[in-house]
Amino acid sequence: MKKEIIIKKNSTFPCDVAVFNNIQLKLESGYILNNFQINFKTYGKLNENKSNVVLICHALTADQFVADNHPITNKKGWWSHMVGPNKPIDTNKYFVICSNVLGGCMGSTGPKEINPETELPFGLEFPAITIKDMVDVQKKLIDSLNIRKLFAVIGASMGAMQVLQWAMDYPEKIENTIHIAGALKHSTQNIAFHEVGRQAIMSDPNWHNGNYLEKKTKPERGLSVARMIAHITYLSEEALQKKFGRKLQSRDLISFGFDADFQIESYLRYQGKSFVDRFDANSYLYMTRAMDYFDISDSFKKIMNFNLENNQHIHHCIISFTSDWLFPTSENKEIVKILNQSGKKVSFTEVETDKGHDSFLLDEPEFYRTISGFLGGNFKNT
Amino acid sequence: MKKEIIIKKNSTFPCDVAVFNNIQLKLESGYILNNFQINFKTYGKLNENKSNVVLICHALTADQFVADNHPITNKKGWWSHMVGPNKPIDTNKYFVICSNVLGGCMGSTGPKEINPETELPFGLEFPAITIKDMVDVQKKLIDSLNIRKLFAVIGASMGAMQVLQWAMDYPEKIENTIHIAGALKHSTQNIAFHEVGRQAIMSDPNWHNGNYLEKKTKPERGLSVARMIAHITYLSEEALQKKFGRKLQSRDLISFGFDADFQIESYLRYQGKSFVDRFDANSYLYMTRAMDYFDISDSFKKIMNFNLENNQHIHHCIISFTSDWLFPTSENKEIVKILNQSGKKVSFTEVETDKGHDSFLLDEPEFYRTISGFLGGNFKNT
Repeated sequence: MKKEIIIKKNSTFPCDVAVFNNIQLKLESGYILNNFQINFKTYGKLNENKSNVVLICHALTADQFVADNHPITNKKGWWSHMVGPNKPIDTNKYFVICSNVLGGCMGSTGPKEINPETELPFGLEFPAITIKDMVDVQKKLIDSLNIRKLFAVIGASMGAMQVLQWAMDYPEKIENTIHIAGALKHSTQNIAFHEVGRQAIMSDPNWHNGNYLEKKTKPERGLSVARMIAHITYLSEEALQKKFGRKLQSRDLISFGFDADFQIESYLRYQGKSFVDRFDANSYLYMTRAMDYFDISDSFKKIMNFNLENNQHIHHCIISFTSDWLFPTSENKEIVKILNQSGKKVSFTEVETDKGHDSFLLDEPEFYRTISGFLGGNFKNT
Repeated sequence: MKKEIIIKKNSTFPCDVAVFNNIQLKLESGYILNNFQINFKTYGKLNENKSNVVLICHALTADQFVADNHPITNKKGWWSHMVGPNKPIDTNKYFVICSNVLGGCMGSTGPKEINPETELPFGLEFPAITIKDMVDVQKKLIDSLNIRKLFAVIGASMGAMQVLQWAMDYPEKIENTIHIAGALKHSTQNIAFHEVGRQAIMSDPNWHNGNYLEKKTKPERGLSVARMIAHITYLSEEALQKKFGRKLQSRDLISFGFDADFQIESYLRYQGKSFVDRFDANSYLYMTRAMDYFDISDSFKKIMNFNLENNQHIHHCIISFTSDWLFPTSENKEIVKILNQSGKKVSFTEVETDKGHDSFLLDEPEFYRTISGFLGGNFKNT
């Protein structure tokens, strides 16, 4: 069996794919994947010295379609305000790569893909994935593209977890990191919200113990409820109050029933329904689990203090949002503290906003200036 | 058809029941109930002048079994630390009444009871209920017991909403109020969490559009998920962190799967499962809706300012908890502000605790002293 890495255009989605044939990937759980593929998208042009590469690590339900229209929803890419020509992550200067994480559902190997051993979709046969596994695969992708060093690794939320993991595991490969709205470990409350979302999915009879693809069903209602729960946590109380308050939806009076009387109800139902069109329920289980398992509160400190020759050169930028209650500033500051105590170069900005965790997806001028300033200040186009 | 009110021992539960035959109750929605019954429980002894009556208004999922074992779960009453001989609400001094709210599921008329018109369980044929409707029925109960005046009306959370409604609608019937962890209106975020819980129930195929009793099923999984979501909101982030952190449940290592690896997961699953044994899913829909509809942010101010001859005599006590993010201190203070501005007698205490909204159910010494002090200071046993 020939070991090979094939990089080609993807036939399903408008992006590239790296196919790893007979190349062992040992996961943190001990499971060994022998064949896997990673879908990825690039923006901008790689410079001669390959010194302008920015790797973007996406969050829980995002994907490689950072800056162009999404092939399923046809909506703008999730970071299209941030990434593009003359945008904060300026594709006139930088060569941007974003890959769909291992376990995801936009073409990378994950629970909805075919298990070569059974020729059926993996479903729950898919091995558990950790943040470290996601990063290991990204590293293999970067190597396969013959990129020696990343100018920057950037990510928010689950993406921020990947950024920290990169800094721990492959510091020699990176020059700068931008860590947005993350933490050293997933908190109890966050695990709790994820667990309820998973229970909503697994309680849907159409889930069929994970084998819904074979049964040609979809646990749509469970996945929709899971998304609704999560969506509340992405917004701040103030944002909800300002945006919706107790305003009624398409009516002057309450209905005295269970229709979506309030705008907030109608909004959440819409968020739930539109999510199921683009996301795989099992993938949601695996991604949330990876976040729950993330806990580098001990190891990060140790590695930052004892691997100095490898990691001392990195410039770190940590960003948090005042109204983010999912990954609050206090948890982001823990990272800053460790970086400072281990003598790293670290910038920290807390962006004042009432928009909650979702701020990283929104047009927040101070946030944008921080990112373009940090990247621009550290970039030497040589 | 004879109009009559029959008060008797309940045959199903160890409590009393007031049966209202051919007595019209016009609900806020306009719907007219002609026959209804209210289950209630009393503790202590009514004094000669009937001047020692304390009415307790229960919260969303509580009931009339305040201080003795619950007939279904056989667990201690939900406020057994608070109510009893020599307890803060001292049944050696006070005659305590607590009724299961209209729309509830512990014997009072609600969606799981038989609709006399169809001889089937009401299900979604049951009319929408508001906090005002709950209070109107309590008023009818109090009148039927020939009680002219309540020494105090006390309630927390949904119970606190009822307390405010009592003060607005029947001020001449009350001497004192204790309002714990409530608000003038249900917030956007709170509506959002309720809506997700309702969607979880209504997404369960065993819900059968509300007719599960006829179908001899129960939307257990949906109701369980709804309870899990709600339960997270009852606790504070700090309490979750302290109580569970990232501790594992009955194992030394994570399972790399979807078992309840973390104690918080196992705890929430248990909370969900045990809830379905004692609570009716439709009742949960109706109760949450009643809370969502509650908004007296305009009317309370008006009535407190313009009905002075009727309401100026009442002593109010408002209590909040520092770590309660469901009904935060800021919302409780809005009530205090209005009461002060309208020249009422009002005491306010913010209890320092990290236990979140659930604090009202827990043994919090400062909280207990506030209640026993307020009641004792205002009580004249004449």
